[in-house]
Amino acid sequence: MFTKVLIANRGEIALRVARTCRELGIATVGVYSTADRDPRVLRHFDEVVHIGPAQSKRSYQSTPAIIEAALQTGAQAIHPGYGFLSEDADFVEVCDEAGLVFIGPRPAQMSALGDKASARRIMSEAGLPLLPGSVEPSPDAAHALATAQRIGYPVIIKASAGGGGKGMAVVRGPEDLEKTFLQAKTVAASLFGDERVYLERYLERARHVEVQVLCDSHGNGVHLGTRDCSVQRRHQKLIEEGPAPALSPANAEDMATSAVLAALKVGYVGVCTFEFLLDERENHYFMEINTRIQVEHPVTEMITGVDLVREQILVAAGRKLAVSQEDIRLSGVAVECRVNGEDPDRDFVPTAGVLERFDPPGGPFTRVDTHAFTGYVLSPHYDSMVAKVIVWAPDRDQALNRMDRALAEFTVDGPGVKTTVPFLRRVLADREFRAAGHSTGLVDRVQAEGNRAERQAK
Amino acid sequence: MFTKVLIANRGEIALRVARTCRELGIATVGVYSTADRDPRVLRHFDEVVHIGPAQSKRSYQSTPAIIEAALQTGAQAIHPGYGFLSEDADFVEVCDEAGLVFIGPRPAQMSALGDKASARRIMSEAGLPLLPGSVEPSPDAAHALATAQRIGYPVIIKASAGGGGKGMAVVRGPEDLEKTFLQAKTVAASLFGDERVYLERYLERARHVEVQVLCDSHGNGVHLGTRDCSVQRRHQKLIEEGPAPALSPANAEDMATSAVLAALKVGYVGVCTFEFLLDERENHYFMEINTRIQVEHPVTEMITGVDLVREQILVAAGRKLAVSQEDIRLSGVAVECRVNGEDPDRDFVPTAGVLERFDPPGGPFTRVDTHAFTGYVLSPHYDSMVAKVIVWAPDRDQALNRMDRALAEFTVDGPGVKTTVPFLRRVLADREFRAAGHSTGLVDRVQAEGNRAERQAK
Repeated sequence: MFTKVLIANRGEIALRVARTCRELGIATVGVYSTADRDPRVLRHFDEVVHIGPAQSKRSYQSTPAIIEAALQTGAQAIHPGYGFLSEDADFVEVCDEAGLVFIGPRPAQMSALGDKASARRIMSEAGLPLLPGSVEPSPDAAHALATAQRIGYPVIIKASAGGGGKGMAVVRGPEDLEKTFLQAKTVAASLFGDERVYLERYLERARHVEVQVLCDSHGNGVHLGTRDCSVQRRHQKLIEEGPAPALSPANAEDMATSAVLAALKVGYVGVCTFEFLLDERENHYFMEINTRIQVEHPVTEMITGVDLVREQILVAAGRKLAVSQEDIRLSGVAVECRVNGEDPDRDFVPTAGVLERFDPPGGPFTRVDTHAFTGYVLSPHYDSMVAKVIVWAPDRDQALNRMDRALAEFTVDGPGVKTTVPFLRRVLADREFRAAGHSTGLVDRVQAEGNRAERQAK
Repeated sequence: MFTKVLIANRGEIALRVARTCRELGIATVGVYSTADRDPRVLRHFDEVVHIGPAQSKRSYQSTPAIIEAALQTGAQAIHPGYGFLSEDADFVEVCDEAGLVFIGPRPAQMSALGDKASARRIMSEAGLPLLPGSVEPSPDAAHALATAQRIGYPVIIKASAGGGGKGMAVVRGPEDLEKTFLQAKTVAASLFGDERVYLERYLERARHVEVQVLCDSHGNGVHLGTRDCSVQRRHQKLIEEGPAPALSPANAEDMATSAVLAALKVGYVGVCTFEFLLDERENHYFMEINTRIQVEHPVTEMITGVDLVREQILVAAGRKLAVSQEDIRLSGVAVECRVNGEDPDRDFVPTAGVLERFDPPGGPFTRVDTHAFTGYVLSPHYDSMVAKVIVWAPDRDQALNRMDRALAEFTVDGPGVKTTVPFLRRVLADREFRAAGHSTGLVDRVQAEGNRAERQAK
């Protein structure tokens, strides 16, 4: 087992990984940019290394800075968290060359499953239904236009190297295609360093359901149930829950089994998530695979009792999975809310500043993952997430009531600081959401209703 | 179902009860003494009523003040928490007269099981082994001396109306008996308003194991497994865990089954805890019954998934238990540490003052129950507990590692404020404790070893 691990990330996920390392008796190396130098954050690591300025390309996304920090501190392995270098196969190869273990998949498997077009090809060959689409990247606007004609509008343009809902654009008719296509390529190049994009049919009333998979290096793989992440704003998840509600057991089993088979077929090692879209008749279409730990992984931890970061570390160290599929029992319902430092009344614009009061919720079956505290300065440089609140209950109704209770007692105050808490509570109270009859359009509708109510009140 | 409940308590348990009320859609009335008037605490209740000065006899233990607050706010029921009025049968009768539901047992059952001597008689009749003792209160020193001669030294003198480890005294030989007996009566009278005391054989290397029981008003009762609470300082629990380790399944089943039978036999409604002492050969002896929610109830919640406060409220409202014994599955191991505002280096003397930093732990399978926050003033008027940290893991070793991690990240700072965190971590690291070979003498030994190490270092 490793005795020292470098955590190549920041914020709540860096602390999340450090917690499990401590529990495993592994020393941690934290890395920080100039913007993150607060010692009250850095206290969670055994050692810390300053790796560059606030700009993440020159710190958290800088391969040389991370590798040097690992070598300098004698870390044997690197945990990438999510985002930043977590899905960068080139980074994994540099780790290999430096004799460092990357806690995640091997580069070939990361590329095979992580690249959207490659994943679609593999899953299509495995017999999984895909949304009508181009499979391969569209080289130019003419090709994209022809593809869109073939699959039918609306279509969605996605970055081949994208993830986390970034760099996506919906096109509703041929008149908008060329312009949006060219914009999407530019956005993809700037966000992911890879301008390739592809087209898919866009489902208007879709549900986003995903399967958590875990594989070791001995050919064993299991799934840990489903999550529903349909509550999204501009393809960014706000509320996640597991198991996915209103999903037939046969369908859940089908998605989960094919996900494990596909992962084992390519020899995948580590955790990964298979994302599907479901239409109104519960037909499921494969969408993409994330080859890293997800923001919403605590949902799965609460319904299975499995510490997924622990499993990541153990399988990266060559351990066999201690559990078989039969050992994994799903119990109850877990829900996660992402509390972002954004102003829901001003179209979720990020806010920043000092948190003069930060009192997270607690109590029964309530988990909070956060790096923030009273006095923390919410930085404008990074993702606006301040905390994840995760609750568990025997059933969905109790879980939603518990989440509302937890959010109601969450205090985040500071000059200029707003959070998504009031908006999340409006979603929790929505009748369609309570009945699990919602689709990915839910947030837009709740937002529009809020704006209408506000206008009427004026 | 009730629409408004008054919570006749303070601190973490008042907030704990308020949380479940909110989740059930029940409005809460909080009560507060002058010492507890901080609005940042009171924000957790829908309404609040000032009930008197800091001195608890004139506020939290004042029957007229509590009843008046309930009537004035239109509350239909009163949740007593633990301590204060929670085991006061007279208070329950006054609630009855005022038309208020007491969320707990009826007065007759509370007295039958809560009174130590009565409980011993009932359990003895049910065939449960008792520690050699007097069963009935000793009227005078001569009777006590004769009893001690009969049962053999060492003996422990306990208050008939006592609880929570208070008012107990160990006597090792006849020369100390009379003096200690008379002192114990005085202490009992002042603490519990009842000077009756009784004698029991004192086990030197005992383990404290208890069974959580839950009964409805329709004749149904279940147990929710065992807890071990052997880590005690002067009979006050510091660390609790569940299920009790190193306990044969047959023995656990025997204790649990007889506890449920005894509760059903007297027609008990609500939650209660049957406490046993185990000797080194795992013989178990019935000790006493607590007729209220216990401080350590979250341990049971984490291994069963049952919200015990919710169940208390539901059965008090006349609901049938939704679960049968077969539905209750124990999963994994949970551990609770009580973080007290005490100085472990000065014999655990309580400390008080403003908490300039209060950053509780979080993350996977970690629960914190606390009413404190950054800026909270730890009052010298009440119990010194600042927070309970509860963790869960698939096995005991992982749970103890997780607890140590959680305590390591817990920051409580303020001028003059000390906590038990460093001491708790020393206990967690103790070899005998890790091997679950410890007894109620553990804390004294760890404390003595710490003092010795300190003297040697000087």
